[in-house]
Amino acid sequence: MIVVLKSSSTNEELEKIVEAVKEYGYTAEVVKGKSKTIIGAVGDQKEKQQHMNLLGQLPGVEAVVPITQPHKLGSREFKNDDSEFKVGNTTVGGQNLTLIAGPCSIESEDQIIEIANSVKESGATILRGGAFKPRTSPYTFQGMGEEGLILLRKAGDESGLPIVTEVLDVKDLDLVCKYADMIQIGARNCQNYALLKAVGKAKKPVLLKRGMSTTINEFLLCAEYLLAEGNMSVALCERGIRTFETATRNTFDINAIPVLKEKTHLPVIGDPAHGTGYWQYVSPIAYAAIAAGADGLAVEVHNNPEIALSDGGQSLKPKRFAEMVEKARIIANAIGKKI
Amino acid sequence: MIVVLKSSSTNEELEKIVEAVKEYGYTAEVVKGKSKTIIGAVGDQKEKQQHMNLLGQLPGVEAVVPITQPHKLGSREFKNDDSEFKVGNTTVGGQNLTLIAGPCSIESEDQIIEIANSVKESGATILRGGAFKPRTSPYTFQGMGEEGLILLRKAGDESGLPIVTEVLDVKDLDLVCKYADMIQIGARNCQNYALLKAVGKAKKPVLLKRGMSTTINEFLLCAEYLLAEGNMSVALCERGIRTFETATRNTFDINAIPVLKEKTHLPVIGDPAHGTGYWQYVSPIAYAAIAAGADGLAVEVHNNPEIALSDGGQSLKPKRFAEMVEKARIIANAIGKKI
Amino acid sequence: MIVVLKSSSTNEELEKIVEAVKEYGYTAEVVKGKSKTIIGAVGDQKEKQQHMNLLGQLPGVEAVVPITQPHKLGSREFKNDDSEFKVGNTTVGGQNLTLIAGPCSIESEDQIIEIANSVKESGATILRGGAFKPRTSPYTFQGMGEEGLILLRKAGDESGLPIVTEVLDVKDLDLVCKYADMIQIGARNCQNYALLKAVGKAKKPVLLKRGMSTTINEFLLCAEYLLAEGNMSVALCERGIRTFETATRNTFDINAIPVLKEKTHLPVIGDPAHGTGYWQYVSPIAYAAIAAGADGLAVEVHNNPEIALSDGGQSLKPKRFAEMVEKARIIANAIGKKI
Amino acid sequence: MIVVLKSSSTNEELEKIVEAVKEYGYTAEVVKGKSKTIIGAVGDQKEKQQHMNLLGQLPGVEAVVPITQPHKLGSREFKNDDSEFKVGNTTVGGQNLTLIAGPCSIESEDQIIEIANSVKESGATILRGGAFKPRTSPYTFQGMGEEGLILLRKAGDESGLPIVTEVLDVKDLDLVCKYADMIQIGARNCQNYALLKAVGKAKKPVLLKRGMSTTINEFLLCAEYLLAEGNMSVALCERGIRTFETATRNTFDINAIPVLKEKTHLPVIGDPAHGTGYWQYVSPIAYAAIAAGADGLAVEVHNNPEIALSDGGQSLKPKRFAEMVEKARIIANAIGKKI
Repeated sequence: MIVVLKSSSTNEELEKIVEAVKEYGYTAEVVKGKSKTIIGAVGDQKEKQQHMNLLGQLPGVEAVVPITQPHKLGSREFKNDDSEFKVGNTTVGGQNLTLIAGPCSIESEDQIIEIANSVKESGATILRGGAFKPRTSPYTFQGMGEEGLILLRKAGDESGLPIVTEVLDVKDLDLVCKYADMIQIGARNCQNYALLKAVGKAKKPVLLKRGMSTTINEFLLCAEYLLAEGNMSVALCERGIRTFETATRNTFDINAIPVLKEKTHLPVIGDPAHGTGYWQYVSPIAYAAIAAGADGLAVEVHNNPEIALSDGGQSLKPKRFAEMVEKARIIANAIGKKI
Repeated sequence: MIVVLKSSSTNEELEKIVEAVKEYGYTAEVVKGKSKTIIGAVGDQKEKQQHMNLLGQLPGVEAVVPITQPHKLGSREFKNDDSEFKVGNTTVGGQNLTLIAGPCSIESEDQIIEIANSVKESGATILRGGAFKPRTSPYTFQGMGEEGLILLRKAGDESGLPIVTEVLDVKDLDLVCKYADMIQIGARNCQNYALLKAVGKAKKPVLLKRGMSTTINEFLLCAEYLLAEGNMSVALCERGIRTFETATRNTFDINAIPVLKEKTHLPVIGDPAHGTGYWQYVSPIAYAAIAAGADGLAVEVHNNPEIALSDGGQSLKPKRFAEMVEKARIIANAIGKKI
Repeated sequence: MIVVLKSSSTNEELEKIVEAVKEYGYTAEVVKGKSKTIIGAVGDQKEKQQHMNLLGQLPGVEAVVPITQPHKLGSREFKNDDSEFKVGNTTVGGQNLTLIAGPCSIESEDQIIEIANSVKESGATILRGGAFKPRTSPYTFQGMGEEGLILLRKAGDESGLPIVTEVLDVKDLDLVCKYADMIQIGARNCQNYALLKAVGKAKKPVLLKRGMSTTINEFLLCAEYLLAEGNMSVALCERGIRTFETATRNTFDINAIPVLKEKTHLPVIGDPAHGTGYWQYVSPIAYAAIAAGADGLAVEVHNNPEIALSDGGQSLKPKRFAEMVEKARIIANAIGKKI
Repeated sequence: MIVVLKSSSTNEELEKIVEAVKEYGYTAEVVKGKSKTIIGAVGDQKEKQQHMNLLGQLPGVEAVVPITQPHKLGSREFKNDDSEFKVGNTTVGGQNLTLIAGPCSIESEDQIIEIANSVKESGATILRGGAFKPRTSPYTFQGMGEEGLILLRKAGDESGLPIVTEVLDVKDLDLVCKYADMIQIGARNCQNYALLKAVGKAKKPVLLKRGMSTTINEFLLCAEYLLAEGNMSVALCERGIRTFETATRNTFDINAIPVLKEKTHLPVIGDPAHGTGYWQYVSPIAYAAIAAGADGLAVEVHNNPEIALSDGGQSLKPKRFAEMVEKARIIANAIGKKI
């Protein structure tokens, strides 16, 4: 970190600051300029953030500036090559685009099996479906629970697709792991550190969704909670951030895709359904995500969105999904990937 | 809800929409204007949000507009009078301003007892301190755990102050309840519904902090998760939202105070430490929160912020806290409250 | 608009509200439901926004909800087919992707002519360059003024490219019109209505950039200021919005592209340079914009970005621009457009 | 500024970076740490922002970090004491709270004179009223123009209050200066540099409103455009920023008040009408602004808000304004100011 001194700082203050820097375990090198003096504090202390806060309060200090990326195991410095990992019979990361598709909520055996077969035929590689639903209001449908997991597993087995589903609660984790090939952590739980630690220990591949107002750096640190427990099979999912714009439900942060690809070796998935909130914008944003370098897509598909129990308004019908995959294939080829 | 039809919609489309509205269990009343036709759909269906999404997809529909507040038990319509409840020997809500003060993290017996006695003397009514800390990075100090709870309880008992502390994980809830008089749910867990349900069942008073990008309506629905489990002793804490501004760590949403006071009977607390991120702005924003009608403040106080293990940069020293309380008292009196 | 009454509203209040609605020139049709009463107010009054505010204040009113799009001449309802217009020898809109390229600032004859020839060769269709620069600080380079315009015109003529440049001040408009083929209105002036009206009267094609926090609906109304003066040759430019994210300078609102294409017949251009702020993210976001349906790109190209007088950090070198165009061509083909 | 090198940077890269730093006119001092090398670049070059961008692109550079405040004449370093200046017969800044009150738009002689006398009696010190209105839609009321200025002047003279009104267009500036005692620059024109320069030359006191997404640092640089032209009579007006929250029209950035008071000697005014958008929240936010240290308030008052031609929904009636002033007086006294 770098400690910048006020123009008005005294030599006495400088000495005390240097002393503090050393006490916290850093080397301190002083650079005196004409108008400003700065101190370079080099070291890798665990409590760096806190040290920065504290130094910032000392008399004579104008600012304290960090200089290193806080994420480690997920960084390109730690591992330069793109990570790939298996989810059931498919590989996430690398040349092949991952296509996660399925309904927001599992509603019945017929529904999930019909959708599973349909998306499989169109080119999907992983089946999604929610059994435990995080709902803004306690008075709305909360998901089918274990019954839903059983149906999802059945639909995965029949269609030959591995399955991903969300876990909301540490106490349900064993149950979910029993059925699922990949665990989803939802946007609202992106910084639920208790859940992250537990899932990190579970050793199942993880689809980690970005929080609605999680910065890219914070998002990488959320992933780091999983990696630090030894689980390296983590895919990051951009699903739209919260901004002032109200024409769409969220603002899909397309910039996050090249930024993440630069900073981390983990695969990056785009979710244009939550990223826009309206089915008619899903396909264009899906194409955009692929063009920007995403390693895959997560899309909501429902055979009858008009009567879906949740998120019907942002779900594609199977036919539209099939059309989307066709066009996505061409764009993927244009940038050297395959569906 | 109201269904607005496109200018170009046909009579046939209108009929189908009316049919759908009725099928979902609402009465449908059609209003034909010169340029637009609208349908008033009245009813209190549990899946209203979903019905709106679905109706929005029918041919001929331009927009679907909600008309009712989704929160119920927390609303002024449910209970018009301001709620008050006891936390240990003090009352939250009503005429008396609640003053929650203490360090971000519990660090040692000396630290917490010294701070407890000091803030009690200055006028604090509840002692705060973190034993389980939600940290952005997995590589930073995560709190003292149960040892911290024991010390906090001791400091509360010695100073005569009830204590509030955060719970991060459902599995720690019983432990925290054993020691604490009030349970804090932090900003990152504001929409952790598993935790909300568990704490709602615990029947301890709750301090629920607003999420960084939780809208006021969503915040009220988070509280509703607690209320719906039968726990009516909930205080809402505004602690700053995430915006584009970088001069402060968060933007304290002062508007939220009168808006919440209008919409809910629950007490509203302001947290100017997290709301600004810098100790020098804590006092002015504390005064502002009181002037805007807050029922209390939550402030970080540390006897030695320069070496605090977390949040030192936004903590007040005991002497500054005492000065702040003096001035806060005058402003509270000006608007008819008491410290 | 729709006026929603409070559950507690009285018949007397209802009558007064209906009276007010009629007085403002609307038809009023009352829908009484079990729990709520609503009034459909139909009409096309000029002061609708104001009427809504006023009705919102009457006793017994819970909310007033708009139901029509406020933009007219730019809307798909007014004109369903995509607009196209000529800028010099090229057409903006339609099948051909517009490629606007050139330096942020015009700096010298050599610089602008070299870049013009280079981008022309790579496939650019319009040359850009700033002569009047809007700078955050008054102490930084403000552009070459008329001298810059002369050089840009010369570079356009030599390379055979039409030119676009920004106007900041109504008093410079005649001067800029003398040289330029297309007028740019910058993000900071997106809601400078005096400038919009003057440019609307100037009858030159316009490149209107979205303001940093202008909603899509407001953006369409800014364009409406130009259209209402009779200037229908307007292209809308998405250039990133301001959000909490700090990893990039702005957040490119990729959603805005399909949303705008749905709501308006005007061509939509993407600016990935300002939309990200870093040259290394420009190409992926350019591809994304095309994939999402943009009618063109505006990109900053500098032959020597390391010594550019402005925006060097987000400028492509000519060689990188050429590579970007190659790949963009393939993606454009994939979705049925041409470069 | 400070240049931070990548861990992987070579000595050759370091040399080239040092060379570039010196070429741009800075002293370069290298600090080699165990894991990182940094270069302190000290100097006060006009093109610092650009130099930072350019250095950021050199091979081996990880980040470039600024260390000085970019604003100068408005800074506390330039002038430590709070600025005060006269507007007609009243002083803005210092011990006395400025109370700017009046309708959004001037509508008629009766209207403006009645309001002027009423707000004067309640304690207002400056009369406001719009003659040129910046409206989101071109199809809504745009103000009375010069006729409005004449009426406002008359109302000011009759009531004994100096007057402030907005200028939208450089070409109207002479006209506005002929009538007004203080010139308002609106939020949408906060970064309209042509207008800022012209008003800076006009030598009338200025009320500069913050843009909807202008950061505090940018806001200070907007003021700098005025100061750099020699106009030092500038008051800064916080009027709410644009965030994700939709319960209010804008989010009043209460934090901006202490931050601005720390960074600049210019007076700071709070506008709770635009800052909230609803009359029922105006008073609480007005109290909050005073408590946080504002030097004054700007409030919309209308004798008949139900039929106001603009902003009726956020205007106070004269009686409510009088009540607000009474309570504001007590809070002002509590923090050592006077109304």
